[in-house]
Amino acid sequence: MVGGGEGAFIGDIHRAAARLDGVIDLVCGAFSSDAGNSYRTGVRLGLSPARVYADWQTLLEREAALPAGARMEFVSIVTPNDLHLPVAVRALESGFHVLSEKPATRTLGEARLLAQAVAEHRRCYAMTHTYLGYPMIAEARARILEGSIGTVRRVNVSYVQGWLASSVETSGNKQAQWRTDPQRAGAGGCVADIGVHAFNLAEYVTGLDVTQLCASLGASLPGRKLDDDAAAFLRFRNGARGMLTASQIATGEANDLSIHVYGATGGLAWSHGDPNALQLLGSDGTAQTLRAGTQLNALHPATLEFCRTPIGHPEGFLEAFANLYRAFAADVRAPGASAGRVGRSPATIDAALRGMAFIDAMVRSNESGQRWMELTADS
Amino acid sequence: MVGGGEGAFIGDIHRAAARLDGVIDLVCGAFSSDAGNSYRTGVRLGLSPARVYADWQTLLEREAALPAGARMEFVSIVTPNDLHLPVAVRALESGFHVLSEKPATRTLGEARLLAQAVAEHRRCYAMTHTYLGYPMIAEARARILEGSIGTVRRVNVSYVQGWLASSVETSGNKQAQWRTDPQRAGAGGCVADIGVHAFNLAEYVTGLDVTQLCASLGASLPGRKLDDDAAAFLRFRNGARGMLTASQIATGEANDLSIHVYGATGGLAWSHGDPNALQLLGSDGTAQTLRAGTQLNALHPATLEFCRTPIGHPEGFLEAFANLYRAFAADVRAPGASAGRVGRSPATIDAALRGMAFIDAMVRSNESGQRWMELTADS
Amino acid sequence: MVGGGEGAFIGDIHRAAARLDGVIDLVCGAFSSDAGNSYRTGVRLGLSPARVYADWQTLLEREAALPAGARMEFVSIVTPNDLHLPVAVRALESGFHVLSEKPATRTLGEARLLAQAVAEHRRCYAMTHTYLGYPMIAEARARILEGSIGTVRRVNVSYVQGWLASSVETSGNKQAQWRTDPQRAGAGGCVADIGVHAFNLAEYVTGLDVTQLCASLGASLPGRKLDDDAAAFLRFRNGARGMLTASQIATGEANDLSIHVYGATGGLAWSHGDPNALQLLGSDGTAQTLRAGTQLNALHPATLEFCRTPIGHPEGFLEAFANLYRAFAADVRAPGASAGRVGRSPATIDAALRGMAFIDAMVRSNESGQRWMELTADS
Amino acid sequence: MVGGGEGAFIGDIHRAAARLDGVIDLVCGAFSSDAGNSYRTGVRLGLSPARVYADWQTLLEREAALPAGARMEFVSIVTPNDLHLPVAVRALESGFHVLSEKPATRTLGEARLLAQAVAEHRRCYAMTHTYLGYPMIAEARARILEGSIGTVRRVNVSYVQGWLASSVETSGNKQAQWRTDPQRAGAGGCVADIGVHAFNLAEYVTGLDVTQLCASLGASLPGRKLDDDAAAFLRFRNGARGMLTASQIATGEANDLSIHVYGATGGLAWSHGDPNALQLLGSDGTAQTLRAGTQLNALHPATLEFCRTPIGHPEGFLEAFANLYRAFAADVRAPGASAGRVGRSPATIDAALRGMAFIDAMVRSNESGQRWMELTADS
Repeated sequence: MVGGGEGAFIGDIHRAAARLDGVIDLVCGAFSSDAGNSYRTGVRLGLSPARVYADWQTLLEREAALPAGARMEFVSIVTPNDLHLPVAVRALESGFHVLSEKPATRTLGEARLLAQAVAEHRRCYAMTHTYLGYPMIAEARARILEGSIGTVRRVNVSYVQGWLASSVETSGNKQAQWRTDPQRAGAGGCVADIGVHAFNLAEYVTGLDVTQLCASLGASLPGRKLDDDAAAFLRFRNGARGMLTASQIATGEANDLSIHVYGATGGLAWSHGDPNALQLLGSDGTAQTLRAGTQLNALHPATLEFCRTPIGHPEGFLEAFANLYRAFAADVRAPGASAGRVGRSPATIDAALRGMAFIDAMVRSNESGQRWMELTADS
Repeated sequence: MVGGGEGAFIGDIHRAAARLDGVIDLVCGAFSSDAGNSYRTGVRLGLSPARVYADWQTLLEREAALPAGARMEFVSIVTPNDLHLPVAVRALESGFHVLSEKPATRTLGEARLLAQAVAEHRRCYAMTHTYLGYPMIAEARARILEGSIGTVRRVNVSYVQGWLASSVETSGNKQAQWRTDPQRAGAGGCVADIGVHAFNLAEYVTGLDVTQLCASLGASLPGRKLDDDAAAFLRFRNGARGMLTASQIATGEANDLSIHVYGATGGLAWSHGDPNALQLLGSDGTAQTLRAGTQLNALHPATLEFCRTPIGHPEGFLEAFANLYRAFAADVRAPGASAGRVGRSPATIDAALRGMAFIDAMVRSNESGQRWMELTADS
Repeated sequence: MVGGGEGAFIGDIHRAAARLDGVIDLVCGAFSSDAGNSYRTGVRLGLSPARVYADWQTLLEREAALPAGARMEFVSIVTPNDLHLPVAVRALESGFHVLSEKPATRTLGEARLLAQAVAEHRRCYAMTHTYLGYPMIAEARARILEGSIGTVRRVNVSYVQGWLASSVETSGNKQAQWRTDPQRAGAGGCVADIGVHAFNLAEYVTGLDVTQLCASLGASLPGRKLDDDAAAFLRFRNGARGMLTASQIATGEANDLSIHVYGATGGLAWSHGDPNALQLLGSDGTAQTLRAGTQLNALHPATLEFCRTPIGHPEGFLEAFANLYRAFAADVRAPGASAGRVGRSPATIDAALRGMAFIDAMVRSNESGQRWMELTADS
Repeated sequence: MVGGGEGAFIGDIHRAAARLDGVIDLVCGAFSSDAGNSYRTGVRLGLSPARVYADWQTLLEREAALPAGARMEFVSIVTPNDLHLPVAVRALESGFHVLSEKPATRTLGEARLLAQAVAEHRRCYAMTHTYLGYPMIAEARARILEGSIGTVRRVNVSYVQGWLASSVETSGNKQAQWRTDPQRAGAGGCVADIGVHAFNLAEYVTGLDVTQLCASLGASLPGRKLDDDAAAFLRFRNGARGMLTASQIATGEANDLSIHVYGATGGLAWSHGDPNALQLLGSDGTAQTLRAGTQLNALHPATLEFCRTPIGHPEGFLEAFANLYRAFAADVRAPGASAGRVGRSPATIDAALRGMAFIDAMVRSNESGQRWMELTADS
């Protein structure tokens, strides 16, 4: 693991998720750009001191030098955004598979470099787009792809939270510091931090690419350099229309991601507030609620694969995360594992490119005074 | 009453709402452009045959000719949009107060004529913007105006329904026929039918004017001439940013209007799905739910005035409507009742003008390829 | 109307409900045992002074003396419980149909006298068991009777509120005063005030009689003479088991009535908190939500008859009440209207007898130290 | 670990929960009474074959014979109920701490033997009463103990599910087989399987002992020997009244545990359907929702200790379970760890005794025809 030392938010979550199913062991780490922090973290986690490294370069070098059965299987990147590209590329070059936090990189240009490296070194690459790990998201996708709501016409996706409603970046909040700093976060603030989750979810659930968007971004607090609030009109490949909202100044909201998809013959709704439920909206005014859980015939196999407990026993964020870790572990252990193979991970290099193209188009559309921008990952 | 004959949707609702509190009697009507329909409706409603009229012109003429104590107090206009202006203007000219369905007119130009007539004849004019009649909307407004969530920064308002998800206008649905016909509905379809409710709610609850908008409208079904799906970025007078969604092709949604307002120190959420509740979102992660009902000290006087039952006894759409009728009756009976006086009706000629300016700006912004349009009622 | 003067809670609700559909006019009243109160109320309501009476005896005598077309059609009794029997019996004797508040009388013995009078004078008698007026209760009953959840096995019904959690009866609350006074309220407190609603709902929705019960009642505040908190095990005719909870000391609850019915093949849930919804629980882990509203094929005709607005436009307590008034009006106007005829009113003299038998059995079971009591209306 | 082999339900859940925080390693096991099953399970879990045992007796003997640093720290018992006592007693005798599934034993008599063994051998003993591991249950308890709802007056607790609504025990369902078999499950069916969870939750959250109960149990399906449906009136030490419902024939319910506590000045509600929320009900008609999550000042320290993710990132059943494992690990590793010390585990030998006293009293009250039974763990 690279990143996730003391003071980091997401490191412990990654580690718990990786551990949950007993199929992945944390064997080494460079947990911080501060070597002391890295060692303290490694010790706390019970790692062999020999495999706690002072920096990520050393980690990659030393692990690559270990015999095949002894070195790590893949690297998990949980650093701030500015390190995503260099760590990933060097890891791929060193022969390691890569599981990375989102956004894939800081810019679309970086994402293209990443894609080249993945293609060249033929290693697995996937991202922890957490929400794709929820069982009912798998179910939503399966239902839409099999046509149960007809042609998709409208998609509303919204991700709102309130933790940047005050200037926490100036009062010692480490998370807020790097996320509001263009050098470390990249061109997008809220757009890159949570907007890309909403975008990714919309494309994944519908199975449709967004081809164009028109966006409006804002920075609500004095002195804030990156957007903390964003909205966009979306146009999908099949002509469907969409609306995306992402805000980090939605005071009083915790972490509210929701998606509504309306097709010609039905609708579908999911919210992170009750992630184990999926609403199927009928054109006759009735709604059906499906619930996650094993031992139910009503769910698709891909959904059941993401469930560990029977219906009525809620699973949550860590389990969704764990599903992504488990899927990636299966991918890297599959015979002939490489980037070219479609595996179980729901977000791979294509999602990385599309996510960065989204952030890029959002920023450009906003700068242009709300012009429509094509959303394409091609250079 | 003008309109609301056989086959109409909203006539019975207006009449029930008017009756509910026992302070308004229906005394006369021209219920349809078809005289037979008008008479049958009048008879069914138990009106004196002498006061059921063949057309609205006759109604206004004959009622105006009655002695002061014998003629109707005000006229309620519940026709399709194309008649709103002519009936209202003639009624004002004839000395009658006017309570009108929304949208006020077909176009912004018509609304300006209406405003002139209101000013000239100094009669009361109000609109049945139903949702302003809900007690918790009054509470939301009062809370925001007193500063309980701080400076408003973001407003998300959404009104989605699915009844136009198929081509019902070609299969005999009278409501769908006129609402999708530019000659009768005006320049906006979904925008004028429900979008204006969402807009009106956003301005009313926040107490802030929308100064600019950037809109995207769509007609989702083949051959449909007016929009059935709309979205807009909003900019409010104080710089707050907003998002408005209105759709009539949201398959499976019944009539889902909701508003979220986020300020510097708190948030607030209301949904038509549970209209008797108001959520106050705290910046500390807690939320408070207020419920409508008499005998509660926690609510503002304006809210309590809109409640008929104790907490826990739900009131609904008809009661919200009835609150508007009761408010308008109080306005017209107040000493010196006239258009110039601020009364109890929450939506008067100013809201009429602003609503039409909204529709106008939405259509223009869409036609311009999503340019920002100023939203002003001034000619 | 008898009762419902100044200071009464339920009078205005009855009157609004009666007015709502425009098929019932309030023509006369004796609104209070205080003649001044009665007259003031009558004047406020716009009644002809000649038909506002000083007491109920005078009302019945004078109205009966009017010519057939001029006198009231039926009497609505909204007094405290102690007057239910004398007013109803005298009204029936005078040839009037009777619509009465619940509970029917103070004791089971009184209810038997009432039943005799109904049978003897062959007039219509019905009760305003409000919750039976909700559309989705009609739907629940229809679904169960047609077998959609299989044989009913368990019924949980609960009605909780908190308004008696402090000694409001000693601080001037008129409602609390008579409801906690055995002379006026009868043998049951909470049991008679709300428990009987829960009981009545359970029998109505399931179509099954409760044959036995075992109850535990409590008076939670010092000096309170009647129960304010009650619970019971129920046994239904078909062997199904039930649980009834009723409490008026459930601090923080407003008026929360809910019912869950579990059958061999499905379940069903309804709550007053969202009265326009009915949940159908499938044995496969899915749930279906039905919503009240016109223009939906999925609902039974009896349900649609109780709806005034399209799906998504909430109706509430007043509309449920109005449905009972409208049904009773239809009953008394039907050719050959009499007690012997099955009409539209969901709660007639049989429900009156069973409700009083319930209260009687609850009190006796509690006094016996939780013995099972047969619940029968026969003397 | 003893139990949890192929075909078991709860074994994998225990193991995932134990793993989640990285502080507990599974080192050995006797996973089934079938040696082959035990070995296959151990291999699947990656255990050293030397520490997978053919039966629990061998496990305890061999592990006890290992050097102090090499043997297991504690044993987790996840077998059917009939083995709880023998395994636990032998483990305690062998010097091991014991974490056991509920119910503690098959009978109250067995529980007393267990308590003697715990006292004699001075080892830690705790139970995985899962629901006590939810953060908002800790919060509910803390709020009540600090007096925020005043004196508790009424407690309603309900645990309903539908998986025994058909005769699954005769169609190969292993879970259903032993749970409906008095020899393996003990004297209670539903009462011992889920009723005891509801009871335990009620006592834990209120901090009050149940002193008496009056119960009604039923077996709804032909040939079923143990109860599948239960209800009880409860009386708490302070005079508060309670109602407990537990049913496994509630068709369509998944796993719905909820508790409502009403005090003199406020109320409180929690439901497993949304386990990360706690409702505080105010006597003024407002309700406040608290949500689990780190970084919130509004929650008690004991609550925060049970949270791994920020507010808005749902945790669930596995995390609740993991909290119990983590607490027990802390207890056994505390200096001077023994049964006599109050540690972090919320359910220890006292809860074991009280739970079995509850089951015993439920069965006896039912057999007596609903007499009140004292609930005491003393012999």
